[in-house]
Amino acid sequence: MSYNTSSVEKELEIINIPDLEREFEKSMAAAAHEKEADFIVGGAGAEHTLHHNISDFDNWEIVPSVIHGLDESKGNTTSEILGIKLKTPIIVSPSAAHGLVHSSAESGTLKGTFNAGSLMTISTFSNQLLKTIHGSTPAAPWFYQFSFDQNQHLNDFLLNEAVQQGAKAIVVGVFGASFGRRERDIRNHFDFDPDLPFRQLAAFPEYPTGLDILKVNNRKRDINPDEIAKIKKQTGLPVLIKGIQSGEDAIRAIENGADGIWISNTGGRQLDGIRSTIKALPEIAEAVNKRVPIIFDSGIRRGQQVFKALALGADLVAIGRAPLYGLHFGGSKGVTSVLEQLRTELLNTMLLAGVTNIKKLKNNTRLEYAYPGI
Amino acid sequence: MSYNTSSVEKELEIINIPDLEREFEKSMAAAAHEKEADFIVGGAGAEHTLHHNISDFDNWEIVPSVIHGLDESKGNTTSEILGIKLKTPIIVSPSAAHGLVHSSAESGTLKGTFNAGSLMTISTFSNQLLKTIHGSTPAAPWFYQFSFDQNQHLNDFLLNEAVQQGAKAIVVGVFGASFGRRERDIRNHFDFDPDLPFRQLAAFPEYPTGLDILKVNNRKRDINPDEIAKIKKQTGLPVLIKGIQSGEDAIRAIENGADGIWISNTGGRQLDGIRSTIKALPEIAEAVNKRVPIIFDSGIRRGQQVFKALALGADLVAIGRAPLYGLHFGGSKGVTSVLEQLRTELLNTMLLAGVTNIKKLKNNTRLEYAYPGI
Amino acid sequence: MSYNTSSVEKELEIINIPDLEREFEKSMAAAAHEKEADFIVGGAGAEHTLHHNISDFDNWEIVPSVIHGLDESKGNTTSEILGIKLKTPIIVSPSAAHGLVHSSAESGTLKGTFNAGSLMTISTFSNQLLKTIHGSTPAAPWFYQFSFDQNQHLNDFLLNEAVQQGAKAIVVGVFGASFGRRERDIRNHFDFDPDLPFRQLAAFPEYPTGLDILKVNNRKRDINPDEIAKIKKQTGLPVLIKGIQSGEDAIRAIENGADGIWISNTGGRQLDGIRSTIKALPEIAEAVNKRVPIIFDSGIRRGQQVFKALALGADLVAIGRAPLYGLHFGGSKGVTSVLEQLRTELLNTMLLAGVTNIKKLKNNTRLEYAYPGI
Amino acid sequence: MSYNTSSVEKELEIINIPDLEREFEKSMAAAAHEKEADFIVGGAGAEHTLHHNISDFDNWEIVPSVIHGLDESKGNTTSEILGIKLKTPIIVSPSAAHGLVHSSAESGTLKGTFNAGSLMTISTFSNQLLKTIHGSTPAAPWFYQFSFDQNQHLNDFLLNEAVQQGAKAIVVGVFGASFGRRERDIRNHFDFDPDLPFRQLAAFPEYPTGLDILKVNNRKRDINPDEIAKIKKQTGLPVLIKGIQSGEDAIRAIENGADGIWISNTGGRQLDGIRSTIKALPEIAEAVNKRVPIIFDSGIRRGQQVFKALALGADLVAIGRAPLYGLHFGGSKGVTSVLEQLRTELLNTMLLAGVTNIKKLKNNTRLEYAYPGI
Repeated sequence: MSYNTSSVEKELEIINIPDLEREFEKSMAAAAHEKEADFIVGGAGAEHTLHHNISDFDNWEIVPSVIHGLDESKGNTTSEILGIKLKTPIIVSPSAAHGLVHSSAESGTLKGTFNAGSLMTISTFSNQLLKTIHGSTPAAPWFYQFSFDQNQHLNDFLLNEAVQQGAKAIVVGVFGASFGRRERDIRNHFDFDPDLPFRQLAAFPEYPTGLDILKVNNRKRDINPDEIAKIKKQTGLPVLIKGIQSGEDAIRAIENGADGIWISNTGGRQLDGIRSTIKALPEIAEAVNKRVPIIFDSGIRRGQQVFKALALGADLVAIGRAPLYGLHFGGSKGVTSVLEQLRTELLNTMLLAGVTNIKKLKNNTRLEYAYPGI
Repeated sequence: MSYNTSSVEKELEIINIPDLEREFEKSMAAAAHEKEADFIVGGAGAEHTLHHNISDFDNWEIVPSVIHGLDESKGNTTSEILGIKLKTPIIVSPSAAHGLVHSSAESGTLKGTFNAGSLMTISTFSNQLLKTIHGSTPAAPWFYQFSFDQNQHLNDFLLNEAVQQGAKAIVVGVFGASFGRRERDIRNHFDFDPDLPFRQLAAFPEYPTGLDILKVNNRKRDINPDEIAKIKKQTGLPVLIKGIQSGEDAIRAIENGADGIWISNTGGRQLDGIRSTIKALPEIAEAVNKRVPIIFDSGIRRGQQVFKALALGADLVAIGRAPLYGLHFGGSKGVTSVLEQLRTELLNTMLLAGVTNIKKLKNNTRLEYAYPGI
Repeated sequence: MSYNTSSVEKELEIINIPDLEREFEKSMAAAAHEKEADFIVGGAGAEHTLHHNISDFDNWEIVPSVIHGLDESKGNTTSEILGIKLKTPIIVSPSAAHGLVHSSAESGTLKGTFNAGSLMTISTFSNQLLKTIHGSTPAAPWFYQFSFDQNQHLNDFLLNEAVQQGAKAIVVGVFGASFGRRERDIRNHFDFDPDLPFRQLAAFPEYPTGLDILKVNNRKRDINPDEIAKIKKQTGLPVLIKGIQSGEDAIRAIENGADGIWISNTGGRQLDGIRSTIKALPEIAEAVNKRVPIIFDSGIRRGQQVFKALALGADLVAIGRAPLYGLHFGGSKGVTSVLEQLRTELLNTMLLAGVTNIKKLKNNTRLEYAYPGI
Repeated sequence: MSYNTSSVEKELEIINIPDLEREFEKSMAAAAHEKEADFIVGGAGAEHTLHHNISDFDNWEIVPSVIHGLDESKGNTTSEILGIKLKTPIIVSPSAAHGLVHSSAESGTLKGTFNAGSLMTISTFSNQLLKTIHGSTPAAPWFYQFSFDQNQHLNDFLLNEAVQQGAKAIVVGVFGASFGRRERDIRNHFDFDPDLPFRQLAAFPEYPTGLDILKVNNRKRDINPDEIAKIKKQTGLPVLIKGIQSGEDAIRAIENGADGIWISNTGGRQLDGIRSTIKALPEIAEAVNKRVPIIFDSGIRRGQQVFKALALGADLVAIGRAPLYGLHFGGSKGVTSVLEQLRTELLNTMLLAGVTNIKKLKNNTRLEYAYPGI
């Protein structure tokens, strides 16, 4: 393919993710890929929710506990999801078209994620075949992100291939029944480059490049409750519902068989003017009541935020944009650097707050609301 | 007339209304009409209320509901007011002197509004005769905005003509007993151009250009409760009271015969330092208690805000400035583009929030206050 | 005297007082009087309280009432204090050294205030003798602002002269037992110009220029409760206590004979980090419970703010800086312009909010707190 | 040593500490010591807590009381800690490497602090031997800041020397079990200059320059509750626990023998995203319930803030950065100037708020929360 992008493979020296994001935008612009950068970093509407996903973490402040003789060397961040052991509670959210930022595309992300002891969720809109991605790092666990199409043959085709290639779970994305209005993309007349086809979709005979699906626009981005059981039966895999933003929806998902609740507003990319996910989290955690694991995404830029999400009820957090920044600058090694950076920040926060492992973090941490009415 | 202004007729590509407003200011300045632009976009006093009319929508955040298998193709925004079917819940507020921005003046606005499946409210201060405006698009429904003058002959003259030309309702504007202090206009020594007379007023023999009325200054911008019944009787038309900002005033209006409550602070153009309309809405909706329809204006710049106003109790929303921006750039087609833009944004919000029609929006939507005291 | 300053006498076209303040700073700078401008517009410490005196008015929003057929022509702002009839509820606070901004000094301010139908409070630190000031406009009512000195002879000298020249009341300034740290003045090494003596103080033999008193620094800026009765007896005049900032102090003042409560933090010029006066007002109004009149100052820049202060319990408001801006640009006529500007803004606010006189404003107005915890 | 730095000795004219901080940064940059300045003024993470340590003081506003005839000449700020009489309630927090800013290093700070009637806490990371520091001003009282190392020999070595040189108390710093991530230092690749060894640590044979300890990284920055009693027994000195940020930790410290509670988040240098200390203070004061003295640090930049901290329950406040600014510009005299500046601002605040001494300040002051939910 002739889309010019980075192919460097190296570990990164990262100060923090917000800085890395700014560097990413500069680097993409230098390669005349401003529009692609906007597609990745931007959000819907006035980007109110994109902004608040991040800033609302400041609504909560940590109260450290410092008198108990912690042994720093005992600090660890090991976590677990659906029986899969992880070195870190930070996993990778699905995002489209990794080829936009690095020639290794999804394969690079999977490898880098695996090397960080984490787990990747592969998007339906990948630039590589599932077989290619999986084949690049066969030992790596991964989830498959799926959303319904009106065309049941396509649904079957994708789900069967995910099972075939060894997905550990199906993550069903539910985002309401339309696409988000991303004004940057509208202003930019953004379109995916024909040199970067969605190869797995393109493998389905009706969509020669995979990109066609965006024009066909017959995706169902919402979900019927009874479809959860159908996918479970069809795939024999656990099903996580991604896009949950209220306690009611979490309950509805669990009652219909969901094996996990994935809180997400897709990073503020779908509907602007909605609650940040960190605002929604306490209500959802209460509704879930530990029946199934909770994955939290949208807004995570710092380890301190991971800490707060876990303390407020999440079991894992997921990040979508930051791994792409790492992939862009360092290929798989860059992805590892990003995940390791956030894990290091999280561990530092834990030790300074007075807990040495995730279980204690979740059970023994005190947060205070920053703006009490008094 | 020699007032130079746009006469282009074309559909517009709109990113969002705030961007369009900035383009409007630039374009008017390029034609040496900065003062006219200030008159249109500005507000009273320190523009605190103008600003908060918009920003206070952020006090409420939408909680989307995503698990019920919505059929995107079923999404629609049809609405209704006083028996008139509309394609959209977004109608056009009265505003003065459309000739300031486009040579087609009020006729262009009426045509563009009609083509968008919406309804226009024609101001007393129109640059064209009611007969001209109505005659340009005879099938278009419209309301007539009226405010009392000390001169009863003028009142009779205007109301009779409105009836004669087929107004569907009389919208009585009540804004308190004075004009707002618009500091931009005072600073600019703004005056209406004598080449743009208020033709309907000028048709009344005592006001040769119509503009004179502004100097005579014997308007009654306040209203006696018993005048509502009088207008109803005189015109045989439904009467809506525009300018309501509290539950008490809404009750007083209804008890005196009002057929609809129009919440408005005239876009922050009259009294600065007052509540935004979105802050006033919940109290008024409770007071009205579905006895008559509620129209909401002041502050609407995005479909997401329309959604919130409807969810908080409005039946329709009205916009005053944005249609003028559309009229300026594209004549009647530009007006249609603006109304369609907001309708599209609204429909997108509905589908992403989990509702397919206005009734469900009003009954099944959950908003959360963004700044709880906890 | 050789201190160069303005001596122009003319009516002013004012947009609003904040704009006028900016013009004032420019004009003073053009005359190499930046330090004097800083002395006048600045405040203590980090100017937190100076800022919040103004911005905290936004904590309250007016709820207009528009349906009762107000007759605009009946709108009036007449007020009264201690039996003195005024055209406006806006009077002039004491401030030092009017000669800094205009050659007519305090005489200009008194004349301009009188012509606006208002009342001036003359500061102990005037650049003219009380006899000169009073003599310039003998019909003008005025109060005398007094604060205790350790030297009882000086106290007697000043109070006797105030009585002699016809003061209508004594305003005792109580500001705590020290001077405010005005960092602009410290940075500027600000000092009063020897060409602008405090003439009334200089008339006391021990203070040849009047300015010496600032070095002697034996002022008592605090007050013993029993001194209120002493001054009343000595002067035979009503005594108002200026500088009250809490309900407790208001009660203490009234119980010790105060004839009026003057809420003030001297425009944020004394102690920074304290409550704005508009925050303190509701508590003080409740404590006073209409036993004596309440004068409110500190923060007033717009008629809308006057409206809010009256609605929250003040009987009059006082302004200190704005009359100096008017004096600077237009002598006595400029002072009248400033007072008339604020009165016009107030009247406009009243009519648009639905009240025609001050009594109705105080009894029938609804304000809402802008930041409810919900 | 060849590290170039200031050696001037002079009193300073200070407007306020924030201005001095900006001057400090400029002056350090002029000497090519930007990195050292960043090390001193910076904080951890996004510097949220560094910022809020300062700005959260604005959450509380002083309500002055002005009617009781205070005698300004009686105003005084004398205080006391562990039987040591002080002229001021403002003492000096431990901070590393005073040699970074002035050639007199810790000796200069001790002398300047003593001359201000205050008390210094000497850090383990001093550039001079305790013997040198103490010897420079033998009459000056001082505390020794100590944190545990894994190497018990080093612990013994340091504590014994502190006792030997006459420390009045041991301040045990507990900051959680890791170092803060100071992004400025990471970005700058900041390292201590080898020409500025930590001499007291270097006196311990295993750490030739003292700087080595930072690489060894076997510090225990957390503490076991039972270690408090051990240090008390070993040194025969009172032990204060520094780093307390919650009521629970304060109680745990007192129950294990702490002679004082030192509230600190080390100026926002350890864990970002935690509560400001002024937010934590009321809860801790309630938990301590006057059983032991409370020292408060982190955020103090103005006397007004000292006032608020004392009013909310602190007995003393401590400052770490500001004395370094004074030391840089004026050696010991500069340190005195800084402490005297804050004491003067505090006294000014006291007199203007209506109290003449620290006891009255603590018992008779009213603060109001600035953001009530109403």
